[in-house]
Amino acid sequence: MLKYAMIGGGPGAFVGQVHRRALALNGQAKIVAGCFSRDLVKTRLLGAELEIDEDRLYATPEELARLEAGDIDFAVVVTSNEAHYSNVKTCLENGINVMCDKPFTHTSTQAQELVELARRKGLALGVSYTYAGYPMVRQMREMIRRGDIGEVRFINCEYPQGWLAEMLETTGHIQASWRADPKRSGGVLSLGDVGSHIEYLVPHVTGLRRTKLAARLDTLVEGRLLDDNGTILTEYEGGAKGMYWYSQAATGMVNGLRLRIFGSEGGLEWFQEDPDHLRHMPLNQAARTLVRGTTDLTPEAAAYSHTPPGHPEGWLLAFANIYSDFCATIIQGKEPNYPTGEDGLRGVRFIEACLESSHNNTSWIDLGDSES
Amino acid sequence: MLKYAMIGGGPGAFVGQVHRRALALNGQAKIVAGCFSRDLVKTRLLGAELEIDEDRLYATPEELARLEAGDIDFAVVVTSNEAHYSNVKTCLENGINVMCDKPFTHTSTQAQELVELARRKGLALGVSYTYAGYPMVRQMREMIRRGDIGEVRFINCEYPQGWLAEMLETTGHIQASWRADPKRSGGVLSLGDVGSHIEYLVPHVTGLRRTKLAARLDTLVEGRLLDDNGTILTEYEGGAKGMYWYSQAATGMVNGLRLRIFGSEGGLEWFQEDPDHLRHMPLNQAARTLVRGTTDLTPEAAAYSHTPPGHPEGWLLAFANIYSDFCATIIQGKEPNYPTGEDGLRGVRFIEACLESSHNNTSWIDLGDSES
Amino acid sequence: MLKYAMIGGGPGAFVGQVHRRALALNGQAKIVAGCFSRDLVKTRLLGAELEIDEDRLYATPEELARLEAGDIDFAVVVTSNEAHYSNVKTCLENGINVMCDKPFTHTSTQAQELVELARRKGLALGVSYTYAGYPMVRQMREMIRRGDIGEVRFINCEYPQGWLAEMLETTGHIQASWRADPKRSGGVLSLGDVGSHIEYLVPHVTGLRRTKLAARLDTLVEGRLLDDNGTILTEYEGGAKGMYWYSQAATGMVNGLRLRIFGSEGGLEWFQEDPDHLRHMPLNQAARTLVRGTTDLTPEAAAYSHTPPGHPEGWLLAFANIYSDFCATIIQGKEPNYPTGEDGLRGVRFIEACLESSHNNTSWIDLGDSES
Amino acid sequence: MLKYAMIGGGPGAFVGQVHRRALALNGQAKIVAGCFSRDLVKTRLLGAELEIDEDRLYATPEELARLEAGDIDFAVVVTSNEAHYSNVKTCLENGINVMCDKPFTHTSTQAQELVELARRKGLALGVSYTYAGYPMVRQMREMIRRGDIGEVRFINCEYPQGWLAEMLETTGHIQASWRADPKRSGGVLSLGDVGSHIEYLVPHVTGLRRTKLAARLDTLVEGRLLDDNGTILTEYEGGAKGMYWYSQAATGMVNGLRLRIFGSEGGLEWFQEDPDHLRHMPLNQAARTLVRGTTDLTPEAAAYSHTPPGHPEGWLLAFANIYSDFCATIIQGKEPNYPTGEDGLRGVRFIEACLESSHNNTSWIDLGDSES
Repeated sequence: MLKYAMIGGGPGAFVGQVHRRALALNGQAKIVAGCFSRDLVKTRLLGAELEIDEDRLYATPEELARLEAGDIDFAVVVTSNEAHYSNVKTCLENGINVMCDKPFTHTSTQAQELVELARRKGLALGVSYTYAGYPMVRQMREMIRRGDIGEVRFINCEYPQGWLAEMLETTGHIQASWRADPKRSGGVLSLGDVGSHIEYLVPHVTGLRRTKLAARLDTLVEGRLLDDNGTILTEYEGGAKGMYWYSQAATGMVNGLRLRIFGSEGGLEWFQEDPDHLRHMPLNQAARTLVRGTTDLTPEAAAYSHTPPGHPEGWLLAFANIYSDFCATIIQGKEPNYPTGEDGLRGVRFIEACLESSHNNTSWIDLGDSES
Repeated sequence: MLKYAMIGGGPGAFVGQVHRRALALNGQAKIVAGCFSRDLVKTRLLGAELEIDEDRLYATPEELARLEAGDIDFAVVVTSNEAHYSNVKTCLENGINVMCDKPFTHTSTQAQELVELARRKGLALGVSYTYAGYPMVRQMREMIRRGDIGEVRFINCEYPQGWLAEMLETTGHIQASWRADPKRSGGVLSLGDVGSHIEYLVPHVTGLRRTKLAARLDTLVEGRLLDDNGTILTEYEGGAKGMYWYSQAATGMVNGLRLRIFGSEGGLEWFQEDPDHLRHMPLNQAARTLVRGTTDLTPEAAAYSHTPPGHPEGWLLAFANIYSDFCATIIQGKEPNYPTGEDGLRGVRFIEACLESSHNNTSWIDLGDSES
Repeated sequence: MLKYAMIGGGPGAFVGQVHRRALALNGQAKIVAGCFSRDLVKTRLLGAELEIDEDRLYATPEELARLEAGDIDFAVVVTSNEAHYSNVKTCLENGINVMCDKPFTHTSTQAQELVELARRKGLALGVSYTYAGYPMVRQMREMIRRGDIGEVRFINCEYPQGWLAEMLETTGHIQASWRADPKRSGGVLSLGDVGSHIEYLVPHVTGLRRTKLAARLDTLVEGRLLDDNGTILTEYEGGAKGMYWYSQAATGMVNGLRLRIFGSEGGLEWFQEDPDHLRHMPLNQAARTLVRGTTDLTPEAAAYSHTPPGHPEGWLLAFANIYSDFCATIIQGKEPNYPTGEDGLRGVRFIEACLESSHNNTSWIDLGDSES
Repeated sequence: MLKYAMIGGGPGAFVGQVHRRALALNGQAKIVAGCFSRDLVKTRLLGAELEIDEDRLYATPEELARLEAGDIDFAVVVTSNEAHYSNVKTCLENGINVMCDKPFTHTSTQAQELVELARRKGLALGVSYTYAGYPMVRQMREMIRRGDIGEVRFINCEYPQGWLAEMLETTGHIQASWRADPKRSGGVLSLGDVGSHIEYLVPHVTGLRRTKLAARLDTLVEGRLLDDNGTILTEYEGGAKGMYWYSQAATGMVNGLRLRIFGSEGGLEWFQEDPDHLRHMPLNQAARTLVRGTTDLTPEAAAYSHTPPGHPEGWLLAFANIYSDFCATIIQGKEPNYPTGEDGLRGVRFIEACLESSHNNTSWIDLGDSES
């Protein structure tokens, strides 16, 4: 079983627990060290609960990286976004593989530096875009790859949430406060938080490289300092077109990531709130509902499926799948089949391009090499 | 009972029968005259079936208008699009109220002329944007008007169909052929056919005037001469934003008009393929499903509802509702509560603005007075 | 165009208007005479609105039948249930074809008499079980007939409504009052009102004859005198089994008729509140959603389909389809393809058998010849 | 952290892994011993993978129980059904708390004996009816308890699957073979496998004791020796009525457990394949969709909810919740809030009563004290 350390994810931090649970589900790795908080008391509190040896609980990420190097197989970085860069860097410099929460870093320069560092050191560097871990997302990807819907022509991907339809960031709401703070969030609010999932998912599933975009970032809630909604027109190599819509001010929407892909021979529709089903619409035939766990699955999707059909798997298992791919690379040296630092870098560049377009009246931005 | 004549809608023409059935449903008007086809034999064939006196079946629309003026309460123009202008004009000039199929005319100059003509003559001039006739569309409109969702902030309206995902226009397919022919369709394909419904519906329901748009019209199917897909960014007076997506090349989609409106106090979602239900998402409360025919309806929506809840009404009854409003104006002189020539004009201008934007690299077009 | 008279369906009577609208939709028949109410003033009021000659408006059904015989093609009987028997009898005795609202009569003796009378006179006698008129119901019927789901093994048909979850009959509520009155309703409340639709639909769609049943009729709302809920176990020739559940006290349900049929090679599911779709579940393959109006339809279903796919047809068009089959028999002498008096008789016998079983502790009742 | 041993669940056994994953998710207990198979080699293989000390891997359950007593906090019994009785007994006799997979035992005499043994020894004895662990099932339970839907009047619970619509048991299919073998399954097939979940869930959620039942067990697939489908009429103290339908031969159905409860003030509907949503239909008001993770949840349901709304939790987390209640009893001596041996006993008695009724022509069986 692999051994890992966690940086961030202290008591009460939701995302740290999610990473730990995802890893526990797989049974491939156990936590042996941690620097969960800037407050060592808190780190020790959680460490005791997790039955970690006290001498492997650290006051700083640097200390952890220095002293655990060689004794752990990877580190998980789940601090708040602004600290991703320095923590990932510390780990990589000490020769430790890293899985970092998304979005990756504040600037593409930082992301670029980390990607190069990992490459130079020959280390695995992942960014946890969870939704790619759903079996039916894999199913779409493989169906497209093998030509089930012909040539992809149009992609509509939307991700509306509604929990920021009010001005929560001035009420002391922790999750809202740091996300809506220009300094801590990296210059975007919802584009980083939810738009980034769209950014990753579309090329991942379609296999298409984006070539151009034009974006309008909106602030729908009065008084807010950053975007809480946005519409992005996209173009892809080979001529496919697309549009993205993300929002956290879509009052009443819950977590509505929806991906629709239309090709010359068929269409596909997947909705994250009902992740075990995939609608396949073959040209001129009745639409079919593919169900996770059945014999309709492609090999890749079947390998991601763990419970019988009709026994919903849910989000934590999707997360676990990302980790099982990450662990497969560490253990067997397999080619990365998880979202990598390169993907994280492309995501940061995408955010920068959207900001540029939006500041320039929704003008078209040529993405050039940034998407290669 | 009112008396009407029909121009167009000959044997085999789908839309003519729809108008007749909608009027039959209401029982407010009966057909007494017709020029259903350029071929008088065909007109007589259908006329006999409809039990119309033979001497009220005409070879040309002009003849019909001249001879029926005074004997009919209104005419229905359901010829192919390129003939709308001349037929409506003939009727109006002869003092006949007109309901014209949508989209209205090829150019805004034509539309403007007809609108002014009707105004000068004091005639009722309608354009049959059917979807406004659904009770739950009325429900949305009235809920927004009375403030149920607060200030409208964002509107997402989409209308994907998939029946033109193939190059049908070169196979002799009648519906596809004239629509895809630049000369007969008025320079746009799907923007006129389905996009126009979005255009009408959004300001109708929200009460908001569009101020700006930026459009990208796409041709997804190789070899096609006009648009079969498009994405349009919009802005509204008061600052609301929106996006429209229409398509007839969205492989596998049927007739997926969906309207989602997000306000400061709630959201609304309506889907044309399930028209008797309306999802209302009040801020921070559980979403409610409003059902046509129940006591939850607003007075306007209730007046549009004809059968008990759970007995689906469907599209023809929506059509009938447009006509009952039109007849109410003719009979009682009521203020128009149906889509008027002015709406048709605004629709043609919208198409022109979209074309301009799309030809100019999705640049923003100021809509100015064209939307007033 | 055929000519018809209506008995019952006076001002404010919902069901009479439904029959008139269904017939108007078809454009096959026009109303020329009526006895809409026991009150001639009311009959004349509605007659004037419908533009019926005053001398064809009658004080009694008998008078209408006697004087209109020969001048009309059929009569529509839409009085309250207790008057069905005498009104239908009067018409038949005068040689008039009849469409009668459902349920047919209070007793099977009455029903038997009417069926024999119609047979002897060679008249068309229909009972308006509307739901059989939906295209996708036809689709199911034809798919089963041609073997798409193999041998039928189990049928689950349910029809829950919730509008009688309160004791409405003591509040002056008209619809509730006569239905819940043992004398006027024929000894059953919801079994006649909604259960009867299940009774008709299952053999109609599956082609299977019922052989046995065991029923428990419940009164869920305290103080009510008749059944408002019931569960019925059934058996069919050839060994298939089934269960029915009907209710009008299922708080919150709207008009939830749902039919699920499971065979050796596949399953089918249809839901009346979404009537244009049919779920087909072929054995060991992904479920398919068949859509009304597409090329997936069987010939019979296609003939019932009037508007393009995705333009919902709804309940009135289903009703209209029943009438177009009825008119086809009258005009062309076609074999009845509509619910006949025989079907109405079987329905009354079914109710009697259910009552017997329920009174005898849910014992099994052999249906013998009553279902042949 | 608690320590546990597992009996059964060897390599390839699906359910054993499910129990281990559910426990891993909670992070409350770790596996320290096992007798996974009758074949010690297989036990050692899995033990090594799970990093269990080799001297805590046992050839027989008896040996495990004897030698681990005092060193483990509980045992998990996940052998095939016929071995439940002896394995649970061995554990209890050695003073070990037990969680046993469902259904509990073959006979009620066995179940009774185990329940008494556990009581005498003061041990925790659980039976893993997973579906009770879903947050929205808790939500229903608490809403009913606090009166949200008034007095419960009718319950419709169904659980159709379709995977046994073919004669899989003669094809070497492992899951089908033991389930369909009268000797190994305990005399029922689908009633034990899926009907038992209905049996547990209804009184658990409604708080109502069953008083009577009448059952028809069917064998829909020719050649099968046991039931693969069944319909059960039920009555409850206080007068509520109900009906259950279970099936594993409902061709095309996946895992369709659906619970609908109708009361005097409202209705509730929950569907296991979409477990994060609950439909609440208040009398005479629009239906509401409650979403797991939102502020609409009751305290009990909120405590069961782990991820944000719209991030589907799924079946494994429901399983984990059963275990966290079980662990809470072991650690803190809390009153059992998990399905207990008593529940398992009642389930076995229910199966016996259904068999008796079905063998006696669906006669009513008085459940008397067996449900207390």
